[in-house]
Amino acid sequence: MAPAKKGILERLNAGEVVIGDGGFVFALEKRGYVKAGPWTPEASVQYPDAVRQLHREFLRAGSNVMQTFTFYASDDKLENRGNNLKLTGAQINEAACDLAREVANEGDALVAGGVSQTPSYLSCKSKTDVKAIFRKQLDVFIKKNVDFLIAEYFEHVEEAVWAVEVMKETGKPVAASLCIGPKGDMHGVSPGECAVRLVKAGAQIVGVNCHFDPMTCVETVKQMKVGVEKAGLKAHYMVQPLAYHTPDCNCQGFIDLPEFPFGLEPRILTRWDMHKYAREAYNAGIRFIGGCCGFEAYHIRAIAEELAPERGFLPSASEKHGSWGAGLEMHTKPWVRARARRDYWENLKPASGRPQCPSMSVPDSWGVTKGHADLMQQKEATSKEELEQLFDKSKTH
Amino acid sequence: MAPAKKGILERLNAGEVVIGDGGFVFALEKRGYVKAGPWTPEASVQYPDAVRQLHREFLRAGSNVMQTFTFYASDDKLENRGNNLKLTGAQINEAACDLAREVANEGDALVAGGVSQTPSYLSCKSKTDVKAIFRKQLDVFIKKNVDFLIAEYFEHVEEAVWAVEVMKETGKPVAASLCIGPKGDMHGVSPGECAVRLVKAGAQIVGVNCHFDPMTCVETVKQMKVGVEKAGLKAHYMVQPLAYHTPDCNCQGFIDLPEFPFGLEPRILTRWDMHKYAREAYNAGIRFIGGCCGFEAYHIRAIAEELAPERGFLPSASEKHGSWGAGLEMHTKPWVRARARRDYWENLKPASGRPQCPSMSVPDSWGVTKGHADLMQQKEATSKEELEQLFDKSKTH
Amino acid sequence: MAPAKKGILERLNAGEVVIGDGGFVFALEKRGYVKAGPWTPEASVQYPDAVRQLHREFLRAGSNVMQTFTFYASDDKLENRGNNLKLTGAQINEAACDLAREVANEGDALVAGGVSQTPSYLSCKSKTDVKAIFRKQLDVFIKKNVDFLIAEYFEHVEEAVWAVEVMKETGKPVAASLCIGPKGDMHGVSPGECAVRLVKAGAQIVGVNCHFDPMTCVETVKQMKVGVEKAGLKAHYMVQPLAYHTPDCNCQGFIDLPEFPFGLEPRILTRWDMHKYAREAYNAGIRFIGGCCGFEAYHIRAIAEELAPERGFLPSASEKHGSWGAGLEMHTKPWVRARARRDYWENLKPASGRPQCPSMSVPDSWGVTKGHADLMQQKEATSKEELEQLFDKSKTH
Amino acid sequence: MAPAKKGILERLNAGEVVIGDGGFVFALEKRGYVKAGPWTPEASVQYPDAVRQLHREFLRAGSNVMQTFTFYASDDKLENRGNNLKLTGAQINEAACDLAREVANEGDALVAGGVSQTPSYLSCKSKTDVKAIFRKQLDVFIKKNVDFLIAEYFEHVEEAVWAVEVMKETGKPVAASLCIGPKGDMHGVSPGECAVRLVKAGAQIVGVNCHFDPMTCVETVKQMKVGVEKAGLKAHYMVQPLAYHTPDCNCQGFIDLPEFPFGLEPRILTRWDMHKYAREAYNAGIRFIGGCCGFEAYHIRAIAEELAPERGFLPSASEKHGSWGAGLEMHTKPWVRARARRDYWENLKPASGRPQCPSMSVPDSWGVTKGHADLMQQKEATSKEELEQLFDKSKTH
Repeated sequence: MAPAKKGILERLNAGEVVIGDGGFVFALEKRGYVKAGPWTPEASVQYPDAVRQLHREFLRAGSNVMQTFTFYASDDKLENRGNNLKLTGAQINEAACDLAREVANEGDALVAGGVSQTPSYLSCKSKTDVKAIFRKQLDVFIKKNVDFLIAEYFEHVEEAVWAVEVMKETGKPVAASLCIGPKGDMHGVSPGECAVRLVKAGAQIVGVNCHFDPMTCVETVKQMKVGVEKAGLKAHYMVQPLAYHTPDCNCQGFIDLPEFPFGLEPRILTRWDMHKYAREAYNAGIRFIGGCCGFEAYHIRAIAEELAPERGFLPSASEKHGSWGAGLEMHTKPWVRARARRDYWENLKPASGRPQCPSMSVPDSWGVTKGHADLMQQKEATSKEELEQLFDKSKTH
Repeated sequence: MAPAKKGILERLNAGEVVIGDGGFVFALEKRGYVKAGPWTPEASVQYPDAVRQLHREFLRAGSNVMQTFTFYASDDKLENRGNNLKLTGAQINEAACDLAREVANEGDALVAGGVSQTPSYLSCKSKTDVKAIFRKQLDVFIKKNVDFLIAEYFEHVEEAVWAVEVMKETGKPVAASLCIGPKGDMHGVSPGECAVRLVKAGAQIVGVNCHFDPMTCVETVKQMKVGVEKAGLKAHYMVQPLAYHTPDCNCQGFIDLPEFPFGLEPRILTRWDMHKYAREAYNAGIRFIGGCCGFEAYHIRAIAEELAPERGFLPSASEKHGSWGAGLEMHTKPWVRARARRDYWENLKPASGRPQCPSMSVPDSWGVTKGHADLMQQKEATSKEELEQLFDKSKTH
Repeated sequence: MAPAKKGILERLNAGEVVIGDGGFVFALEKRGYVKAGPWTPEASVQYPDAVRQLHREFLRAGSNVMQTFTFYASDDKLENRGNNLKLTGAQINEAACDLAREVANEGDALVAGGVSQTPSYLSCKSKTDVKAIFRKQLDVFIKKNVDFLIAEYFEHVEEAVWAVEVMKETGKPVAASLCIGPKGDMHGVSPGECAVRLVKAGAQIVGVNCHFDPMTCVETVKQMKVGVEKAGLKAHYMVQPLAYHTPDCNCQGFIDLPEFPFGLEPRILTRWDMHKYAREAYNAGIRFIGGCCGFEAYHIRAIAEELAPERGFLPSASEKHGSWGAGLEMHTKPWVRARARRDYWENLKPASGRPQCPSMSVPDSWGVTKGHADLMQQKEATSKEELEQLFDKSKTH
Repeated sequence: MAPAKKGILERLNAGEVVIGDGGFVFALEKRGYVKAGPWTPEASVQYPDAVRQLHREFLRAGSNVMQTFTFYASDDKLENRGNNLKLTGAQINEAACDLAREVANEGDALVAGGVSQTPSYLSCKSKTDVKAIFRKQLDVFIKKNVDFLIAEYFEHVEEAVWAVEVMKETGKPVAASLCIGPKGDMHGVSPGECAVRLVKAGAQIVGVNCHFDPMTCVETVKQMKVGVEKAGLKAHYMVQPLAYHTPDCNCQGFIDLPEFPFGLEPRILTRWDMHKYAREAYNAGIRFIGGCCGFEAYHIRAIAEELAPERGFLPSASEKHGSWGAGLEMHTKPWVRARARRDYWENLKPASGRPQCPSMSVPDSWGVTKGHADLMQQKEATSKEELEQLFDKSKTH
């Protein structure tokens, strides 16, 4: 490995665009190596070839960050989710670090060790207990000498702040990413306020990942930026959204859509949607731009291709991709050749081929009866509590 | 490798279900190893790890057939498509055979060597010339001792018959699969008549692949079966459709849809659509059931899970998949746990999240002006010729 | 009244376009004068002003035919539908004739006395009994001296033939119109064969009305024309379709759509759809072109405006209508003024504003359980019997 | 006529529900008596039978208010719109008053004289000039002794305040209704502030009409109510929305939708949508509940039927309407009979039968190029100015 690879903060301070990677649990679920429901990453130990291959696809597509495949790899989560393989958290986290490092060394990528929200927090364990959980994963990351740390997929800013506090003890650069939308975290803390708390706790990079589609995530990070700047603070910004269209989400994101997780196909973004996303994120001042669930290599490549003018180079995988459909120029059918142009793909409104399906869904929630669902369509119930209040009121007629 | 692996005809004669694999060019295009437009398979030489990994995913998902990744690997095609890597057809075909064999040996799968339609036929080369092209690929397949041969992705039955004739010289079992729909081949030969010609030429297995969605393909193979039986002949049947909903196709299939090939995402089938397809194909008497463009490992696994009662076993990848969403039973949110049941997924009408997009498209064709497109919506123009006649007539008003 | 008004056959023999009227039961239901379910026309007696006004709107829009508002006004139907007003069939039929004549005299329109299918036929009464029912209505029409007769809205050609036979006794010109689609009548008699039987029974004009959308109805009449011509016979052709888009109907037409009759709004055709319909009908050689359920005055006006070049004049109501949106030229907003052109409206794909609704429905039928409905989506079950056979077969898996 | 008919304020003060009428210009445009574009009401003089009939339909459906058909009947508008009939404003306004009074006398309805926004205001005439325009119409209303006055369809609260000030001079009760949505008037004055200004100017009833769909209008009136109550004022509230679904509108309402005004059919609300609207409006404390463009008699009847429990009676037109589809109980087909229940219609998601159309549109505005339209989808540009700023910014990339 070349000793001179620039660190994450060096890159961001220099104004470079850092491209993140895509989603591991969803991609590996489709390939047969992760189980939907538990979503735990035993595959790093069980099927290292499959995990390595996915890392390589993202690297080749332009990713500058190899996140360790350690989502939900805290000891309490592994236990809770019926880890019947008798693998320890340490084993999984170590294997994941090795795979990420191996592939990072094949190109211009850094390794980021990631922790995510814990069952301990949700079951109201103490701050000390929750921090101890994080510390166990971080011990591995330090031993394996990752390049920086990411606290990601937190629904409650309080828990994310605890994670950042533990991470700061290591001396590594710290990024913090919540899975929230424009309405804020599960306790209603606004994106701007969430970001301020994370920066004050020591995160140098803040943003959001998962749960919402790209445009919604960019909007949320913009609010974070406004909050941070208003507070007179400074930070870098990151965004790693879903690769699904989710205009019909409620505040809990795509989990509550009736299609989650096995019927999301019609929502998958095209590569052209990703061009728009990358431009929008860039224009918003975000410089760490990647993806989460649903993102595959070609989505990441589209980000890299859109931002190639700013960055000055194309990713390796563009060897196999004509920009804006140019590869179709050699198609045998002239009317397919006519699609080899930017204008065509930018304006296409792709059909679903599903005439008996709607274009939007009603999000699902606990205790949502028919009556509740009707109310949700009419009014903007953004929480179960509000929903129940509406329902109580509605029973008077 | 166990010497006792049963051959393709032994299996089909015994009434077994043989599960095919999924689509290589589309999956590898998304992963960054195949270029859309040329669609040629240099990756077998350039990126063997990526090709091997995809074979393994299909094997793990339940495939009994590893097709050599030799689509469009005839010398005339490689040359025509600007093969600037200076790889010979023989190099590519050999590498593909080795990869398929390596993975086939890891489980209960056979290797099938495949040839597809050629530019030589389309440019009206002689029967002798076209056969010579096929023979070059077949020489490799024989040298590498594949288990059987498939002539697939032919739009014209005449060329497929020529391919079958050459294949029969080898003594290997022969399957022949056209990329046609219920309206027949590009010269209007009906599916029943196509099948009869292929069987008479020596194919033991006949069917269709690519170009149309599963239900359309099953319908086409049913017509083939009726034709073969009416002619007093016998055959086995295969089907390997798209993993895209295409109710709005014309006779040339998904190539003519405006979304081809970079905007097909909203059409991708769910795993539950695949359950319906597998059952429908089985009920139609088809026993070689696989997939083509768009099929990923989880789609193949769904076929294997649907037919597990008939076959008596689940595929390896079901280790990471709760049947009918059972894995959701341990989700933290009760309303997500409520989705862990067959009834839920069978009845879901998944939304696209794209309210500004239509559900159906108008297929595109050469010379289709606005006037033509209007006509196509109203009348059933199934060819460019018919379309132009309609257009000429329409100009009178 | 000018004594020289040309008769229906004179007009058609001269090659003139005769424009029919629109739908009375649906329009008057919305206005509050007809009850959905019974659909009987007591309003001719109860609310003559409302009926007269609707006649006038159609006349003004260009209709050359005032059909007596006598749909379902046979004695057996009135009784069957709970006619609690104690009005006799004769009273209703007479009042309807008077209203039609009054308005016809205000312009260039003829009066057509109409009979429709009877409960007597459906409950298997004898030919003699059914004919007696028709004769009672016809007695009124002769007494009131209507200009010609229409047997319309028959699902069974046999009953329509009986009606034609009785009508022929009067010496008036006879038109016969079935409510069938391209698959033929409820006993599976093809449109071509139906038309031949009606012409042989003495109808000078044959065609279809109601149950299907314009393009489907034109297609059906085309088949009738082919049948009549093949049989060496001669006839004039008429078409009076729904003003609803119904691409998802089964053979029983819009009655079986889940939206019938109180949720059809999103299917209503625009005036621009009517331009396409009128042109298509004209090009098919149909010269009696009108409408049925859902047609309002502006739909009829659109037919008259589309065919104005052929006819040489615009209808009175065009006084209040700029052709192809020309009236918008004086709108205050420039971007609304930009809509004042044919090209704009011809190409508009109007949105429903209903993102949670599908674009197509599954038709409803007796005994349709969930299982049946699934089958109907996959296969083409065109009758209850076929559906039940499919269902029985499907229970084996 | 009974001298004791209760006035509008008496009714509202007593807590009664007052049902408004529906839309005249759109209904009469379809019937052939109003020209889209100018939208002026010469028909009151030219075609009194047609106007009288429409009043009667609304009365019969339950309306307690007959609004004079005097929309856009100010002298400056009539002149501006090319009034080539040489009818004076006074003639039109007088004829409209007579027709409204004639029908009001046939039932329990009041006559309301209405004025709407003027070209004089838009072209920046002085307050004195604009008030003079209103005064001319009001002179007629006083001469004809209408029961109360409505200033409706104002986009700018300033002009509406001027109208109210003139109306107050007459001593009649005054209602004021803006055509705004939740974002306020065209100068960005919020609904709450608008309402406060109108009440302070002397309006006893305030609310909104036209431009948006029912749920959006109810939401806007709720904001008005909050504003009025916060200011320590008192008022009654009215709402008369479109009968079109318009979730995709911008701040200028349905005028900017590409379907306006000739392609709105797929957006038309069903009677069941109106039940939900009526309940929602009632629950919001609104007691003057009617409709505007697109509302036909059956929509008004649905309001009256939904609120029959509160009001204690059904409208006359319910004679011809089984509540919640009950009229279908006597349909011949059992599966149609099965639709005769509330649950069925409440839950129906009606299909459009238009698979090639989207469910939502992008609103149109002056100067909207493709680039603008894209921006509007991504960001919330609520004015032309904002849009142009966005566009200027966007040109930097």
